[in-house]
Amino acid sequence: MVELSTAPPAGAEQRLKKLGIVLPPPPIPLGAYVEAIRSGNLLFLSGMLPVEDGRPQFIGRIGGELTVGDGRKAATTAALNALSAAKAFLGSLNSVAGIVKLGVFIATEDDFREHPKVADGASELLEKVFGTEKLSTRVVLGVASLPLGMPIELELVLEVEVGNDH
Amino acid sequence: MVELSTAPPAGAEQRLKKLGIVLPPPPIPLGAYVEAIRSGNLLFLSGMLPVEDGRPQFIGRIGGELTVGDGRKAATTAALNALSAAKAFLGSLNSVAGIVKLGVFIATEDDFREHPKVADGASELLEKVFGTEKLSTRVVLGVASLPLGMPIELELVLEVEVGNDH
Amino acid sequence: MVELSTAPPAGAEQRLKKLGIVLPPPPIPLGAYVEAIRSGNLLFLSGMLPVEDGRPQFIGRIGGELTVGDGRKAATTAALNALSAAKAFLGSLNSVAGIVKLGVFIATEDDFREHPKVADGASELLEKVFGTEKLSTRVVLGVASLPLGMPIELELVLEVEVGNDH
Repeated sequence: MVELSTAPPAGAEQRLKKLGIVLPPPPIPLGAYVEAIRSGNLLFLSGMLPVEDGRPQFIGRIGGELTVGDGRKAATTAALNALSAAKAFLGSLNSVAGIVKLGVFIATEDDFREHPKVADGASELLEKVFGTEKLSTRVVLGVASLPLGMPIELELVLEVEVGNDH
Repeated sequence: MVELSTAPPAGAEQRLKKLGIVLPPPPIPLGAYVEAIRSGNLLFLSGMLPVEDGRPQFIGRIGGELTVGDGRKAATTAALNALSAAKAFLGSLNSVAGIVKLGVFIATEDDFREHPKVADGASELLEKVFGTEKLSTRVVLGVASLPLGMPIELELVLEVEVGNDH
Repeated sequence: MVELSTAPPAGAEQRLKKLGIVLPPPPIPLGAYVEAIRSGNLLFLSGMLPVEDGRPQFIGRIGGELTVGDGRKAATTAALNALSAAKAFLGSLNSVAGIVKLGVFIATEDDFREHPKVADGASELLEKVFGTEKLSTRVVLGVASLPLGMPIELELVLEVEVGNDH
């Protein structure tokens, strides 16, 4: 009897390796809170900022001193920090069943309108890592200011695989 | 033996019909995300905008070029888009057990104070459709800017009936 | 056989009493919504404002007419209102298993950067009441304006003890 063999679908950890992405160390809280809490199958993450090597990657406002391109880079960096925080909590990103919410908060000038392009800097990284079948819902806002003057903050709520009992 | 007959409580779909409301087509994502994701009994929706016939119904800022009345209309339009997105996912709005969160984000001038009146444009529509017993919690913020220059964005988290296994 | 007896860990209600904190009356909705909704083990609260004795404790913007110290006080007051709303719903704060999300929204001048210090006004109160083992995740944003001109709004999502079937 012939057994059909199909390659197992690549998990997020395998995709990260293929993409050559090395996650940064997990972010450190700026006050009296923690970076991740699980409740049932939902994993809530704290606001993720574009911090690189312990320092803000960018300071400023998109549409002002910073460009859409800067904003996309900052959103990607913040998303990498989110992945690192999730991995530190779960042990492996292969436990992530989906991203139920991605909030993208962008410090903007008042007349800025290109929010979706900036937000895609985070969404496209997540798509590469988790696959098109795990695209998130998304809420994107232009805000007045963000902690330490950074231009981007992300909020993620993940769904964790049933049976992953951290 | 006499059987007491009481009219069954009208569901959301029946109320919509009675109100003469025809839902718009479901909104189309502006980037790498989806409009709805269910996790357990919670249905998360992406940020809903006052788009009508594929175009922004209003562009601008409440308290500036736009009035409180414009903001109420925009909030109602965004809420109709939310209902359409939820129906596209669930098949029927009668599967909605409640609205656990309504976020109302309003692009405002800095000195604007009448947020609750604007937000009620969404809340009152939802109350008409789902009934007073299903009023949501609500978080209302005045923001610096919103995608494409629109004045309103809504975030909804719905509770779905147990047993609706989409 | 000797039975080891350890003092039971103080609950939130006992800590409140020890701290000499008397909760304010629960907040009253400013529109067509409710202050709290439970879905499964999650309790969602509406946006909590720094209202004291039925009036805004502060009006204005942090980094403008209001200081970081004012913002911390306002955040503490809003957190007390959140505790009161949660207690009104649950009967006792001892039913709170954790705070899965604390959102802190601060009306700021555009160049404000000290968001974490202001947000700690809420986080440190919650830490005193629920203990260090129940620190929340946190999302902090600087916004353009808040309802009635107040400088702070909080969003809380609590986890409720299994078996508390309100």
